[in-house]
Amino acid sequence: MLNFECDYNNGAHPKILENLVKTNNTQSLTYGFDEWSERAKIKIKKACNKEDADIFFLCGGTQTNATVIDGMLNSYEGVIASDEGHISVHEAGAVEAFGHKVITLKSKNGKISAEQIENYLNVFENDESRDHVAQPGMVYLTFPTEFGTIYSKKEIYDVYSLCRRYELSLFIDGARLGYGLMCEKCDFDLPWLADHCDCFYIGGTKVGALCGEAVVFTHHNAPKRFFSIIKRHGALMAKGRLAGIQFDTLFTDNLYFEISKHAVQTAQQLKDLLQQAGFSFYLDSPTNQQFVIIPNDKVKELEKKVIFTHWFPFDEKSFVCRFVTSWATTQQEMDELRKILLS
Amino acid sequence: MLNFECDYNNGAHPKILENLVKTNNTQSLTYGFDEWSERAKIKIKKACNKEDADIFFLCGGTQTNATVIDGMLNSYEGVIASDEGHISVHEAGAVEAFGHKVITLKSKNGKISAEQIENYLNVFENDESRDHVAQPGMVYLTFPTEFGTIYSKKEIYDVYSLCRRYELSLFIDGARLGYGLMCEKCDFDLPWLADHCDCFYIGGTKVGALCGEAVVFTHHNAPKRFFSIIKRHGALMAKGRLAGIQFDTLFTDNLYFEISKHAVQTAQQLKDLLQQAGFSFYLDSPTNQQFVIIPNDKVKELEKKVIFTHWFPFDEKSFVCRFVTSWATTQQEMDELRKILLS
Amino acid sequence: MLNFECDYNNGAHPKILENLVKTNNTQSLTYGFDEWSERAKIKIKKACNKEDADIFFLCGGTQTNATVIDGMLNSYEGVIASDEGHISVHEAGAVEAFGHKVITLKSKNGKISAEQIENYLNVFENDESRDHVAQPGMVYLTFPTEFGTIYSKKEIYDVYSLCRRYELSLFIDGARLGYGLMCEKCDFDLPWLADHCDCFYIGGTKVGALCGEAVVFTHHNAPKRFFSIIKRHGALMAKGRLAGIQFDTLFTDNLYFEISKHAVQTAQQLKDLLQQAGFSFYLDSPTNQQFVIIPNDKVKELEKKVIFTHWFPFDEKSFVCRFVTSWATTQQEMDELRKILLS
Amino acid sequence: MLNFECDYNNGAHPKILENLVKTNNTQSLTYGFDEWSERAKIKIKKACNKEDADIFFLCGGTQTNATVIDGMLNSYEGVIASDEGHISVHEAGAVEAFGHKVITLKSKNGKISAEQIENYLNVFENDESRDHVAQPGMVYLTFPTEFGTIYSKKEIYDVYSLCRRYELSLFIDGARLGYGLMCEKCDFDLPWLADHCDCFYIGGTKVGALCGEAVVFTHHNAPKRFFSIIKRHGALMAKGRLAGIQFDTLFTDNLYFEISKHAVQTAQQLKDLLQQAGFSFYLDSPTNQQFVIIPNDKVKELEKKVIFTHWFPFDEKSFVCRFVTSWATTQQEMDELRKILLS
Repeated sequence: MLNFECDYNNGAHPKILENLVKTNNTQSLTYGFDEWSERAKIKIKKACNKEDADIFFLCGGTQTNATVIDGMLNSYEGVIASDEGHISVHEAGAVEAFGHKVITLKSKNGKISAEQIENYLNVFENDESRDHVAQPGMVYLTFPTEFGTIYSKKEIYDVYSLCRRYELSLFIDGARLGYGLMCEKCDFDLPWLADHCDCFYIGGTKVGALCGEAVVFTHHNAPKRFFSIIKRHGALMAKGRLAGIQFDTLFTDNLYFEISKHAVQTAQQLKDLLQQAGFSFYLDSPTNQQFVIIPNDKVKELEKKVIFTHWFPFDEKSFVCRFVTSWATTQQEMDELRKILLS
Repeated sequence: MLNFECDYNNGAHPKILENLVKTNNTQSLTYGFDEWSERAKIKIKKACNKEDADIFFLCGGTQTNATVIDGMLNSYEGVIASDEGHISVHEAGAVEAFGHKVITLKSKNGKISAEQIENYLNVFENDESRDHVAQPGMVYLTFPTEFGTIYSKKEIYDVYSLCRRYELSLFIDGARLGYGLMCEKCDFDLPWLADHCDCFYIGGTKVGALCGEAVVFTHHNAPKRFFSIIKRHGALMAKGRLAGIQFDTLFTDNLYFEISKHAVQTAQQLKDLLQQAGFSFYLDSPTNQQFVIIPNDKVKELEKKVIFTHWFPFDEKSFVCRFVTSWATTQQEMDELRKILLS
Repeated sequence: MLNFECDYNNGAHPKILENLVKTNNTQSLTYGFDEWSERAKIKIKKACNKEDADIFFLCGGTQTNATVIDGMLNSYEGVIASDEGHISVHEAGAVEAFGHKVITLKSKNGKISAEQIENYLNVFENDESRDHVAQPGMVYLTFPTEFGTIYSKKEIYDVYSLCRRYELSLFIDGARLGYGLMCEKCDFDLPWLADHCDCFYIGGTKVGALCGEAVVFTHHNAPKRFFSIIKRHGALMAKGRLAGIQFDTLFTDNLYFEISKHAVQTAQQLKDLLQQAGFSFYLDSPTNQQFVIIPNDKVKELEKKVIFTHWFPFDEKSFVCRFVTSWATTQQEMDELRKILLS
Repeated sequence: MLNFECDYNNGAHPKILENLVKTNNTQSLTYGFDEWSERAKIKIKKACNKEDADIFFLCGGTQTNATVIDGMLNSYEGVIASDEGHISVHEAGAVEAFGHKVITLKSKNGKISAEQIENYLNVFENDESRDHVAQPGMVYLTFPTEFGTIYSKKEIYDVYSLCRRYELSLFIDGARLGYGLMCEKCDFDLPWLADHCDCFYIGGTKVGALCGEAVVFTHHNAPKRFFSIIKRHGALMAKGRLAGIQFDTLFTDNLYFEISKHAVQTAQQLKDLLQQAGFSFYLDSPTNQQFVIIPNDKVKELEKKVIFTHWFPFDEKSFVCRFVTSWATTQQEMDELRKILLS
């Protein structure tokens, strides 16, 4: 059965496995002090053009969000996010589990704007009861968003300027960072991003790794004792080498970016195919996730041959379905999908 | 200066002080096992017509909400509430501090409907990722709401039926319960309410007491070890007698209801005055809180003579202001206000 | 029945009730901005000789401990305390509920020493895994302790010096502060104490008030946004006047100290009586709590006429029992107890 | 440099890597619903002789402890543990981060006894203030302990009987389970263990895997919605296959037990060598961790050639050092150590 369900249903990029095998008999320090983690950090700093970044490797996305947000906020602070944001919906209350409110703003195509955030802050600051309200301490964006859309250079610039004006942190969830940066529509690169937020992470799990996310505090601004905070969150990997070797591989010879590019290019093929099959799109996504409106009977038919996600009902007669490509999607899979959709 | 800012800017009803004085030299058991607490519980059960209720006295509203919600929910559960609900906005993240998400629905006139809740639950249950989402475990309503509005018998009946169908608890925040029950528009009484939810509280702080809220679990359904839960929340009063004596007084000779009635009747006078002064209302409140739209220049003028709350800007030229009466509002105060408004 | 069970089984000092009655019809600001709270703060600062103290009124002891400790610590920090300390045992896990470990040291007569704390810190600092350990952030002492004992000037001086050397906060739980300060053995006064810790509280609930504890941050060092932290803990009193009026009364004409002195003087009578009755003491307490070893059969006999607490079995034949005097203990009660014990 | 620092400084057992490579191109379901996870669960159930076990795979030890303990306890409950237990010391307060107190008992050789636990429970139950105390809800044991020692059949039987009598859960941390079960001194096997506790986990990280712990709820007693609880803890692996493939491998052809046996046999060699070198032991450990007392000057000398852990000072002249073997220790390494120690 063809599978376009998500970007984490394969193993790892072969070079990662190769390096895991190659290094397997080498003993190392633990908890992230191994040589590969050190090397990966240097390469990531270089890719970000940020000598003074603080870098940590964690295991998965929800864990990373909860740990970073809890680490950067004071106990009484909440985080501003899109109402469709991953932390707002699909993390089973992990941010709240550590005591922080997620303050949601209504998203448009998965995004929130500087203007919306400023409106919220204005209302907050003018509220006579503002000391009775969870204090906003951070803005959280996803790049790309849960709907595959991306923020433009100007949009991020505006949000970050606002954040600095209001003394809020800006944290960018990059679980699919590569797919955003490498899509044609993206008008900035990694160093620019690293210059325009306080913290972001480079998603590995969805971009070629078995597991692992690289958290980048962009200007030596890791929270005090962040190592202990990671441990307290149950997020410290004993064999830190597992993440280290993977990110060392991904940031050698541009691998992370190349495999990301492959996925978004394949997604363009996917988009064309779906369009040719006569379907329209819920929104215009330039990255590896495509949200397409499919009549209910056609959904049933397709389900027999392809795995995809049923996102939500569009109306009574059709459904918004998600198709996802990844670093691992092959031309053969695309050809099979073509046959299914167009014959 | 006249003060219509809120319903907790006075001391206590004189009979409460009288009884505090009268009992002052009597020694008692502590932590709520005193004779007055026992007596108050019996009277409240009687007023609710619920022999099998479990009753606890806590100190304030936010504390009560956080303790009851945390006590009734499992760790992984959240609470469904209006986006204007007290727990959603004005409790500084106290519910989240104990690890629970507040799942907000867009309110209309401060209220949410059974239909809205059911829509949410339908989306939740049909979400392929529903196990990745904070599980809904409770519906929280305020009666009256933050906008002074009330739910009708049918509305509460529908919400409670829905809750039972979906195995959710229904918890009603009655910080101003008396002002809701005694307003003309209310089409049910306390025993009916006690029959149509799992837990509610009878607000004392805003209805004549110095402090204190009486939590009523309606059918011997207090969470296991709720006493220890109260203690863990820092909400256990050492001198439980302070709450006991107050609620014993409030539930003697119908006092709680009579003083509540006084406040809503006075609010009707207030409403008339504001109308005669030419102001229109943000919404139609039948209880002791009135939200009135006042031109900005008039706001500035009134401020010099009356204290009230600036709720939010209505438009560029006018403001929504809140005026509140209480059990303590005197006819003299009303007369002075009349002079100010109508001369 | 005679009652020596605890120091919070009476109402309030008559002057407090008098002032509650006197001020009852005066409207006020809420949430602690009332005139009496302001006045009480000024008087407490004066009594502490600390113009630059930050003062907050909370309702009860466990709540105060949990709020102050959570407010002063970073998320990843724990608090060092005696294993008999109130937060270690009798607060139902309230400190842990906000995510902080209580790091316990074995107490002697209810106390821990600077030497013990330093030993702990030495082991911690030399532990190769110290970043995997809850980081010590504060020392918590009770004054007087749960066993009625007190720290000497030198002992507190040593602990505070140590704290400053290791950059830990020193927080002193003064739920029974008056009974400690006014006992004969105490070799310092309130201003000296305020000079030798970062935060302490002046217990009202056990020293004449209906409820209320006054938290004193000794050098403008209240945690950022402590007001919101109090709210988040459900500890903000809507009618702040209740605490304000009480503390205003207690710190007028030395009342707090005089009634405290009365309790410790009465405790000396109690001690003499128990000694004359042939009982020995579990330890030597100079304050209002006395821990006396009573043969089991005698315990049964006494129980019929006097209420006291059964602390724990001393051996198979006798029990450690606690007798407590308070600001409210009368000479008549002492005379009755004499009859019971010595006839 | 020779490295006897710990049992997680190597990569993975070669068969694990082989299977990761072999399955790499096979697409799978995510979040633990993949075929290998399913297969691994069946094999583990068989190895435990527990058809009705519920099995979950998590990433690391601290995470597993925090998630299981939080999942099995009610909010107001604490966990009884040795004061040397991993959760008591080396998890940076992860259990407290989710609101639970760790109730510590003084350990002997890393262990606590049924008798000690019962004494604690007796004191608790007879405490007049027991409702003010964190309620004991679980006993946590480590097998083997942090000092390499193991509980005997009788000791575990007694603790589990006690737990059932007092309605406490028994949870056994098996981060090094294989090394305990396969040591000569162990008088029970895996099925017997699975019959004598409510939950335990089979450590992978320290026994041949890159990461991963298999949690076994022994009698269909997984907490309600444990999947969501895992997610809320940030502990759900998106690519569940990573754990699945590893445990499928470890539980094929007895691999887990064989490599564990290798480690404990090598540890016996290690023990002999250290003894021949004239050192005495801090305690008698039958498993892969050896705690040996080494004179300070000798420590300095050895450090140049071997990595080991400095546990704590034994006295002024010598140090307790930890040497650890693992599934990966080679005979060549042992021979080199022999040379260093005995020549």
